[in-house]
Amino acid sequence: MKKFFDPETVALVGASSRPFRPGHNLFLNLRDCFGEKFFPVNPRVKEIEGIRCYSSLLEIPAQVDVAIIIIPANSVPEVLEQCARKGIKRVIIESAGFAEVGKQGKKLQEICLEIARKNGIRLWGPNCMGAINITKNKVLSFMSPFLWKGRFSPGPVSLVVQSGMLSAGFLSYIISKMPFGLSKVASIGNKSDVNETEILEYLIQDPDTRVIGMYLESISQGRKFFQLAKSTDKPVVVLKGGSSPYGAQAAYSHTASLAQDDSLVEGIFHQAGIIRAKGLVELMEVVRAFTIYQPEKKSKARLAIITFSGAAGVVASDRVYELGMKIARLSKKTEEQVKTVFPDWMEPANPLDIYPAIEKNGPQITYQTALNALFQDPGVDAIFLHSFAPPVNVPIINYDWLAEQMKKSNKPVVAWIMGHTETAKQIEEELRKRGIIVVEEMVRGLRILRALLLRK
Amino acid sequence: MKKFFDPETVALVGASSRPFRPGHNLFLNLRDCFGEKFFPVNPRVKEIEGIRCYSSLLEIPAQVDVAIIIIPANSVPEVLEQCARKGIKRVIIESAGFAEVGKQGKKLQEICLEIARKNGIRLWGPNCMGAINITKNKVLSFMSPFLWKGRFSPGPVSLVVQSGMLSAGFLSYIISKMPFGLSKVASIGNKSDVNETEILEYLIQDPDTRVIGMYLESISQGRKFFQLAKSTDKPVVVLKGGSSPYGAQAAYSHTASLAQDDSLVEGIFHQAGIIRAKGLVELMEVVRAFTIYQPEKKSKARLAIITFSGAAGVVASDRVYELGMKIARLSKKTEEQVKTVFPDWMEPANPLDIYPAIEKNGPQITYQTALNALFQDPGVDAIFLHSFAPPVNVPIINYDWLAEQMKKSNKPVVAWIMGHTETAKQIEEELRKRGIIVVEEMVRGLRILRALLLRK
Repeated sequence: MKKFFDPETVALVGASSRPFRPGHNLFLNLRDCFGEKFFPVNPRVKEIEGIRCYSSLLEIPAQVDVAIIIIPANSVPEVLEQCARKGIKRVIIESAGFAEVGKQGKKLQEICLEIARKNGIRLWGPNCMGAINITKNKVLSFMSPFLWKGRFSPGPVSLVVQSGMLSAGFLSYIISKMPFGLSKVASIGNKSDVNETEILEYLIQDPDTRVIGMYLESISQGRKFFQLAKSTDKPVVVLKGGSSPYGAQAAYSHTASLAQDDSLVEGIFHQAGIIRAKGLVELMEVVRAFTIYQPEKKSKARLAIITFSGAAGVVASDRVYELGMKIARLSKKTEEQVKTVFPDWMEPANPLDIYPAIEKNGPQITYQTALNALFQDPGVDAIFLHSFAPPVNVPIINYDWLAEQMKKSNKPVVAWIMGHTETAKQIEEELRKRGIIVVEEMVRGLRILRALLLRK
Repeated sequence: MKKFFDPETVALVGASSRPFRPGHNLFLNLRDCFGEKFFPVNPRVKEIEGIRCYSSLLEIPAQVDVAIIIIPANSVPEVLEQCARKGIKRVIIESAGFAEVGKQGKKLQEICLEIARKNGIRLWGPNCMGAINITKNKVLSFMSPFLWKGRFSPGPVSLVVQSGMLSAGFLSYIISKMPFGLSKVASIGNKSDVNETEILEYLIQDPDTRVIGMYLESISQGRKFFQLAKSTDKPVVVLKGGSSPYGAQAAYSHTASLAQDDSLVEGIFHQAGIIRAKGLVELMEVVRAFTIYQPEKKSKARLAIITFSGAAGVVASDRVYELGMKIARLSKKTEEQVKTVFPDWMEPANPLDIYPAIEKNGPQITYQTALNALFQDPGVDAIFLHSFAPPVNVPIINYDWLAEQMKKSNKPVVAWIMGHTETAKQIEEELRKRGIIVVEEMVRGLRILRALLLRK
């Protein structure tokens, strides 16, 4: 598996000179990542942008670690035979037109698999966007260079997705909105041979990967997948497509995935401690949250809520309950500390409705006193901070102190800011700069906290 | 009830000269809205900013339609007695410190109510932010003028909230992010006398109100509330706080609201066709959506999904199912029209995965052909448009045409744009300008569509 992500030499069958075509994007990516160790194949042209094209794989004067195929589906079996003759052991078929388009395509996919098995070739795809290794700067995908160059930076997240868009436009878009660092991205498509379970096994071993996110339309080796996910301390976050009759039908025409009983999937996920996302953005938000926070695996999920609106405190409490988390019981010490900033008539409670205290002491002393108590309270596992943006841009918290305390206590903080629009933006920026997660909507923030805290 | 929202003369007991104090905000709002028909009361000062202060209500040389009280709770009963002597029939107590703070406060609230009942006074509050009438520019609330002036504009939405923040900072913040027009806002606090049911009855009659949104921590006259909601064609959207044990506890200390069995509430909401929101932002999003779209009350909620990502189509289908909506069966005519832009190998299906067609025809023809078919398809009730932002800013749709078709067909369109970050922003802007709802996250968009379509 490692060689798929980290080959020395690569060949591209279907190199194209036409801008924006997949075969051209692949040409550009492989040229830039592999230089002289990249061998484009196209019998109809002698060269592309000054680089020699081979008329067949067999002509390449070197051993090829990975061959990438991006030609019409019908011609793929023939090229696979060439791979066999050339002794290539790893092939990524990025072309579409296989099992996902119906009976004939399915047959074609079976033929390809047969050739591969007979010749000891591992097959990746078809109908996929291939492998990306940001740690090593090796992009074996037809993703447009505009979408990844200068946008993807190395980091702890690895993704396995049964989708092209999730590994290309979507990922790039999300990262431009909420940056996080990537290690490997595997777009596995119809996964005729190489599947998510095998890649999961590899990523669990991979020292560059700390967080694993997946979009899957089916799970191929359920038992092994479950055991692997259960065995690792690395968070595994999965968005499962096709969990309903509607979704299953759409998944079948997308990646030829067959429906699986979702209550079974749910049970397995729960037991294995797999975190389940419900949307594409949520998948990325949660994966990203784990790059910032590393809460313990067996958290009791006891939340402290700081708010300036009684209503927000009430609604947050309702959602905390629904999401299976707990409203923390504050310690005596916390209550005493909070009392020093609360007005006399007000009893400390969780949610901490902090507005009267801010009116009395201003925001800085109030927030710092409350947060300090909560960071030290052993009965509090995480903090949801619903904070008010005043009309003038004075720091409402010592942001550096907040970031430091968050790290020191290992308690995730998710912030939701509102009030005056301009200062809200500035406060959000100050928090984000320091790696604190800021959400635009309460329920989304609580769902992120739940994902962080409620791994079984 | 009308006089509470549209008084001719108002008095303020507790007018303050200290900037940012509630009594000063009220002074500014009432002065600006009522001019010479506003009578501030404060026995300790002769005037505030050049306006004469009366030492008592009894001194005011005019009939007073509504008296607003913002003095410490303990002194309120005495002032109510004065109201009685002065013949004032409507009083808004905006001060806190009543039933929400415990036994003693509860007693105080009962005393106030007793005085009111004995003297034929209707009581609004206590512990609230009072009444706002944007249609008539009458703001009887201690909301800071910075938060509403130049921000709130007249429109079809009326709100009833058991929360100060929801009628002030939060509302102002949300409107700055996603503008909609307001008619009345009622912040009813502990609702010792005037309650949400009475106001609902008024708003149903009110010709300026077309959409009703509510945040409630308890429902006072359940049966009547239910009958009213059921009787009206105006959408009633409710966020109910205190639906869980955690939330109920928080609600008790917020507005002294007692818990109600939430399964009962859920059943009543469903039968009455009340739309239930689950978060503060969602409440506003949904209310706003009804200002743009007026779908029929008995929609079959059959969605067409246009996407450029198979995965997004699959996940959207799953969520559509969970949310109790339907994936529309496309008509033969729609399929034929779509086929004219699809590549030969691709069968039209819903979700419509449109990327191959865009590669073949470019975005404009593709989107227009597909959307045109869907707008005319009698089996489609609404469209979820997941659209791709290309690297260069060419119009991907004829936006004016889209807005026009949306109105003509009365089919809501919710758009979710991604792709190249800069052009995505521009496309979002073009759509928003024309009143099309744009979301940053799929599930949120589907929840809005469900709220629009699934009123029973």
